Amino acid sequence: LSGAGYHSESKAREYKQVCKRACLKAVDRLRAGGLALEAVTAALLELEDSPFTNAGTGSNLNLAGEIECDASIMDGKSLNYGAVGALSGIKNPVLVARRLLSETQKGKLSAGRIPPCFLVGKGAEQWAVSHGIPACPTEKMTTKFSLSGYKRNKRKMELAEQVETKRRRQSCGRENDFGLLKPVGEFMMEGKDNNCLDTVGAVVVDWEGNVAAAVSSGGLAMKHPGRVGQAAHFGCGCWAENARDISSYSTAVSTSGSGEHLIRTMLARECSTAMQTENAHQALLDAMQKKFIGSPFLAGEDCVLGGVIVLRCCSEDMQALLVEFLWSHTTESMCVGYMSAQDSKARASRPTFPDFLLEQWLDSHWRSKVEFVDSGKQVTEAM
Amino acid sequence: LSGAGYHSESKAREYKQVCKRACLKAVDRLRAGGLALEAVTAALLELEDSPFTNAGTGSNLNLAGEIECDASIMDGKSLNYGAVGALSGIKNPVLVARRLLSETQKGKLSAGRIPPCFLVGKGAEQWAVSHGIPACPTEKMTTKFSLSGYKRNKRKMELAEQVETKRRRQSCGRENDFGLLKPVGEFMMEGKDNNCLDTVGAVVVDWEGNVAAAVSSGGLAMKHPGRVGQAAHFGCGCWAENARDISSYSTAVSTSGSGEHLIRTMLARECSTAMQTENAHQALLDAMQKKFIGSPFLAGEDCVLGGVIVLRCCSEDMQALLVEFLWSHTTESMCVGYMSAQDSKARASRPTFPDFLLEQWLDSHWRSKVEFVDSGKQVTEAM
Repeated sequence: LSGAGYHSESKAREYKQVCKRACLKAVDRLRAGGLALEAVTAALLELEDSPFTNAGTGSNLNLAGEIECDASIMDGKSLNYGAVGALSGIKNPVLVARRLLSETQKGKLSAGRIPPCFLVGKGAEQWAVSHGIPACPTEKMTTKFSLSGYKRNKRKMELAEQVETKRRRQSCGRENDFGLLKPVGEFMMEGKDNNCLDTVGAVVVDWEGNVAAAVSSGGLAMKHPGRVGQAAHFGCGCWAENARDISSYSTAVSTSGSGEHLIRTMLARECSTAMQTENAHQALLDAMQKKFIGSPFLAGEDCVLGGVIVLRCCSEDMQALLVEFLWSHTTESMCVGYMSAQDSKARASRPTFPDFLLEQWLDSHWRSKVEFVDSGKQVTEAM
Repeated sequence: LSGAGYHSESKAREYKQVCKRACLKAVDRLRAGGLALEAVTAALLELEDSPFTNAGTGSNLNLAGEIECDASIMDGKSLNYGAVGALSGIKNPVLVARRLLSETQKGKLSAGRIPPCFLVGKGAEQWAVSHGIPACPTEKMTTKFSLSGYKRNKRKMELAEQVETKRRRQSCGRENDFGLLKPVGEFMMEGKDNNCLDTVGAVVVDWEGNVAAAVSSGGLAMKHPGRVGQAAHFGCGCWAENARDISSYSTAVSTSGSGEHLIRTMLARECSTAMQTENAHQALLDAMQKKFIGSPFLAGEDCVLGGVIVLRCCSEDMQALLVEFLWSHTTESMCVGYMSAQDSKARASRPTFPDFLLEQWLDSHWRSKVEFVDSGKQVTEAM
C-alpha cells in the first residue's frame, strides 16, 4: 500500500515521511480488522492533511486564488465508486467521496431516486455538510507554500503573456521569425520548485483479499475555476476490482500527473485491465508505453507526465495471498511508500530516474517472505 | 445520424419532429462541406432548443428548482473531447463542450498550462461567457412543462418521505411487517408522464469518413445540486473513434438513461469497443447484455435503464463507405431519427418494445441502397 505523489527536491524528506505515516495509518486500520476501503481512506486522510502535498490542506490555488479539490474512491468488492470535483470548503475531499460511495450502497433515495456517485462544486459542499461532514474555511486549507506558489505563478503567467503578446505583435510584421524571443516553455509552471503535480493516492488489499483505491488532488496550479481533473474521473484517477474468479487477479491502481492526459487515456482502468497477464512487470511497462506515452489519445502532446501505483494479488490457495506492488512514472521523480501488515515499519522510496521507470515489490503475507524486483533483477529474502 | 431520447406517450409526435429537424440540421452542415464535428453540434443545438427534450431549454429542474446541464462531445479524428457538468445559465451546453474541445486543439495556454477538457458549475459558466458564449437567465430555459413536473415531483417526494417515515416508525414496534403500506416504488419519478430520462444525443459520419458523437442532458429530475451524470463523463455519455487501420471500424456512440448506471458501466466506450467484431447486430446485443444489463458493475441494481445509438462504418475501398446505424434500449421506448445526405427527408422511429430491443439501419451512400434490419429479418431495397 502506498501514497504516490510528484515531488520537488527540497521537500523530499517531508514527502517520504508523510508516505510512511499514511502507510502506518492504513495498516493500523487493517490490524484493527478494517477492510481495504477503510484503510485506503485512512491513508488518504493523512496525505490530504499534509501541507506538503497538493491535496486537501496545501492544495494548489486556482486562477482565482481559491482551492478546488478533486477526489475519488473505488471499492473492488462491490465495484462501487464515489467522486467529488471542484470541491471547496471541505478539509478532506476523500471523506465526501467515501460517503457518496457508502450512500450508493444503501440503495435508492426517497421516491425511487438513484443516489448520486459524482457531485461537484457548491452542490457537493452542501451535500457534504448536510451529511455531517464539517465545512472548513478555505483560509485554513491555504498554506504559506501554496500562497507563495500562487504569487510566483501569477508573475510567471503575466510575464509569459507579455512575451506572447510581444511575439504576436512582432510576427504580424515578419512571419516565421520567432528566434529573438525566449520560448514560452521557460515560463512553464511544471517544475521542481512547484508542487503542481503532487497528487496523492493509495491502493490497499485487506486480509479477505478485497482491494480498494483512492486518489485526491488540488489540481493543476492556476487552473481555471471549475476545472475537474483525473482524480474525480471514473476510470482515470483510481480503479479497484476484486478478482472475478480463481484464475484472475484483483487489481488496484491510483494515478498522478497531468489530469487531462490521464483522463483521455483512462489510465487507471487501462493499467488494471493490462495487469491480468502473467508478468506484472512487463504488463505495466507495456501499458505505460502503449496506453499512455504512445497512446493515440495523446498524439501530438509533447510532454506526457504521469505516474501510477499498482497493486495486484491472487490467491494461490485458500491460505496464501500473493501481493505484488509496482509503480511507474514518466516524470523526473515520484515518492512511493509501502508496507505490509507484517512489517514493523513502512518503507518509502523516491526513485529519480530521468526516464520511464518501473519498480516492483512482492509481498506474500502468509509465506513470510518478501521479494523485491528492481529493474528486472530479483532478490528473495527469507524472513 | 440521429437524436435519441426517452420519451412519454403524450409527446411522441413532438419527439419525432425534433429528431427529424435535428437530422436535417446535421445533413445541411454536411452538404455545405461541414465535418462530422460541426454536423453533430448542429444536431445537438436543435435537440437542446426543443422545450420537449430534457436538455438545454426544458431541462429537468433539480432539488433546488434550478437547471444544471451536462454535455460532452468527442471527435473521432483527433480523439479530442470536451465536457461540461452541472452548468447553469447557458442556453446550449453543447456549445461550451464544443468550444472546450476546440481550445484543447490549439495547444497549451500561457505559461505552458494544459487547457481544461472538463469544466463544471460556476467556473464553466464564467469560462463560457469569457469565450463569447452568451449567458442566458435560467427563467428563459425553464418551461411550463419543467416547472409543472418539478411541482408534481416535489409532492411525490414529500408523500414518499412521509410514507417512509411512517414505515420506519411502525417497523420499530413490529419488524418485517411492511405489508400494510404501499411500496415506495409507486411514487417513483421515472415514468410515462415525466421526461426525466429524455437525454439527447447524436452520432455523425462525414464524407471523409470521420465520426463524431455528442450528448446533452438536464439530468435526473430532482437530482441533488452539483450532481453530474453520464452526459459529462468521458467514455460514458458519448464516444467517437475513427478507424485506426483499414481492417477496423470507425465507431460513434451516444447513450441515454440512468446516469449513474451509464457511468459505472462506461457504456459508450464499451459499445464502441464491442463494435469491432463482424456482426454489428450481435455485437451490440452482446454488449448491452454483458456490459450493461448483466454488468458486474451493476450487480444488485434492480432497474437498469439505458439506451444507445451506434454508428459504425468502414471503407470497403477508397470510393465506398459502408455505414451501419443501430440502436438498443432497455427502456419502454426511445425515439430515434436518422438520415443520410442522399435522403430528401429524415426518418424517425419510436420503437416501444417492452423488452430489450435492437434495430439496425444500413446505409451505403455510394452504392445507393438501403438495408433495413429489424429483429434479425433483413430487407434490401434497391433505390
